Amino acid sequence: MSAVDSPTSVGIVEPKKITFEQPLRLVCGQTLHSHTLVYETYGQLNPAKSNAVLICHALSSNHHAAGFHSIDDKKPGWWENYIGPGKPIDTNKFYVVCPNNIGGCDGSSGPNSLNPKTGKIYGPDFPLVTVKDWVASQALLAEALGITYWAAVIGGSLGGMQAMQWSLDFPDKVRHCVTIASAAKLTAQNIAFNEIARQAITSDPYFYAGRYQDHNTTPKQGLALARMVGHITYLSDDAMREKFGRDLRADEFNYGFDVEFQVESYLRYQGNTFSDSFDANTYLLMTKALDYFDIAKDFDNDLVSAFSHAKCDYLVLSFSSDWRFAPERSKEIADALIIAKKNVSYAEIVASQGHDAFLISIPRYSDIFRAYMNRIDCDLLSAPPAAATAPATATAVADISN
Amino acid sequence: MSAVDSPTSVGIVEPKKITFEQPLRLVCGQTLHSHTLVYETYGQLNPAKSNAVLICHALSSNHHAAGFHSIDDKKPGWWENYIGPGKPIDTNKFYVVCPNNIGGCDGSSGPNSLNPKTGKIYGPDFPLVTVKDWVASQALLAEALGITYWAAVIGGSLGGMQAMQWSLDFPDKVRHCVTIASAAKLTAQNIAFNEIARQAITSDPYFYAGRYQDHNTTPKQGLALARMVGHITYLSDDAMREKFGRDLRADEFNYGFDVEFQVESYLRYQGNTFSDSFDANTYLLMTKALDYFDIAKDFDNDLVSAFSHAKCDYLVLSFSSDWRFAPERSKEIADALIIAKKNVSYAEIVASQGHDAFLISIPRYSDIFRAYMNRIDCDLLSAPPAAATAPATATAVADISN
Repeated sequence: MSAVDSPTSVGIVEPKKITFEQPLRLVCGQTLHSHTLVYETYGQLNPAKSNAVLICHALSSNHHAAGFHSIDDKKPGWWENYIGPGKPIDTNKFYVVCPNNIGGCDGSSGPNSLNPKTGKIYGPDFPLVTVKDWVASQALLAEALGITYWAAVIGGSLGGMQAMQWSLDFPDKVRHCVTIASAAKLTAQNIAFNEIARQAITSDPYFYAGRYQDHNTTPKQGLALARMVGHITYLSDDAMREKFGRDLRADEFNYGFDVEFQVESYLRYQGNTFSDSFDANTYLLMTKALDYFDIAKDFDNDLVSAFSHAKCDYLVLSFSSDWRFAPERSKEIADALIIAKKNVSYAEIVASQGHDAFLISIPRYSDIFRAYMNRIDCDLLSAPPAAATAPATATAVADISN
Repeated sequence: MSAVDSPTSVGIVEPKKITFEQPLRLVCGQTLHSHTLVYETYGQLNPAKSNAVLICHALSSNHHAAGFHSIDDKKPGWWENYIGPGKPIDTNKFYVVCPNNIGGCDGSSGPNSLNPKTGKIYGPDFPLVTVKDWVASQALLAEALGITYWAAVIGGSLGGMQAMQWSLDFPDKVRHCVTIASAAKLTAQNIAFNEIARQAITSDPYFYAGRYQDHNTTPKQGLALARMVGHITYLSDDAMREKFGRDLRADEFNYGFDVEFQVESYLRYQGNTFSDSFDANTYLLMTKALDYFDIAKDFDNDLVSAFSHAKCDYLVLSFSSDWRFAPERSKEIADALIIAKKNVSYAEIVASQGHDAFLISIPRYSDIFRAYMNRIDCDLLSAPPAAATAPATATAVADISN
């Protein structure tokens, strides 16, 4: 991880804000009459505007993907390992844009924003947003920045879903789609874990039907519990064994309900830290967006038919120990892309860290990611994209993991 | 599943109760000055008293393993699939004993019992009990029933842990040990899930530090949440896909926080039903007993050294899709038994149902279980057991699954 003055870090960055006054009609049927996006950019947009890359964030992250907010900032953005000068998403080459999605709690319009209708914060009245809505909102941002197409749209987990959705909703505006540790839709087990998280939050006595701010409180314990559940599913069984095993906090069992094992202590800490900084209504919205996502739904549940509308090339990556978004889910995507005659590179990275691997510096992952990004020719991209009907070569690089 | 008058059911059964007035010193350091066990028996103890089988229950079950409590009883005992005339645990051959463990909430001494010291219910003052304590208490029951040794001690999950503990704590009193879908100790991930369950319960505003009965209430929502988490981990990803997929409750998404998917509805139902009938303090105790179990801990963490003290034969079974107690955990047990020169049969059953498979009627599982139980010669068992030092033949039947 870089320090603020590292030559491989983008260094000090400042979030920007933009407000769109045009109405955004959402999938749920409601309309946001205006909305704000907070976002960060790294690198420079070239004169041909052919080097822009969109980074889509996952469930609990935000627009701060790389760099530091001040000289004293100890913690860089969430994808510092992969964005910066000379890194796989090389800011010497690319102009990187990362917005906080609507529904979020870090500056973009969401439950904590003021509802222009009432003058009060939205709270639970903020409408349910979907991956499609995020893509539509990000498209407004692209337009505002003068970007007519993305050299690449990139994301991990829920971010990978947005990248795929971009390739279908705006096929002429995406040249490359990078989807990491993602899935074409959630499994029943995934939905079940999300439901547990929601129940934990909504059954907290301080939730007040989502109007906790009106009571000057937050459903802290419920949100912590939701995060703890999530956290277990982001780590692999092996990763937890390596990290904690059955290590005790004290020398011996205390035979009580205080923390006995290190893993309990860690989970409580993770839960509490998270619930101090994240908004419960946003967490609820994000889990629903995950549940609703189903990229083939509008195409008779046929993934091949869905992807046949895309015009971009794809890199699909998965991690061997990821059981929340298992390699099988990524293989489904890669297989469908091949049958749909798209250019797709697929790799399953051998990694013990589970779903969280997508955030972690892993040499093989980094090498493959870098190689793919290096191949993107931003000069060539100035030319219009190939028509969807043009025959594409399916270059599936299956299991190139080491 | 049998009806009450089925020839393969033990039919109507009645729980029995026994109180032990001698003190039971627990592993945690506390002493139960007297304690009660409620238990059921099926079949007849033979004159040689060589056909007794002990069934050890898992986290949330009890002494009611087979048969029905009344003619109108719709639901049989929890292991009706495997206990009865002609079934794998054949009540024409065996005398089956199944107690509710101390700490339970179905009649044996536990948080809901009266504390003789105070005249009030124990509640959270009931001491933490361990698998070793249960075995010690079950040994008192055996003595009271005139059973000097068990033809077999059998259990699934937490029950399998008790069966293994029996084989080490009372090597002369166990001829066969059947441990199904179990483990020599929990993994960090297992402990983490248990910690989530406990946090869900203890953070329920109606928990009142375990004294909810004093307030005429129960931490129903927290217990339901704990059960929901448990439930997901008892089912496999595949089983949930087969059962629910992404089926919706209504025809279309309602884009709200009401139930959208069938799996959400199912989980809520399971959680609510469970929390109507089970005691939260007992649930807490049971998860702690799971966490503390580590059969090799007293043997320098050497599983082979631990099992070298056993004198019985073993059947170890696991299920391919069980990720809470994965086949790897059972293989560790079987491997250690082989190295310790014990007779062990091991099979991994191909089954999609996850951990819950141990309760379900599965032909291959049933066949292997039946074959093993049929081989037990209760007449031969009247002879004293082989000394621990006698060379035993290791007959590992690895992967005899179909």
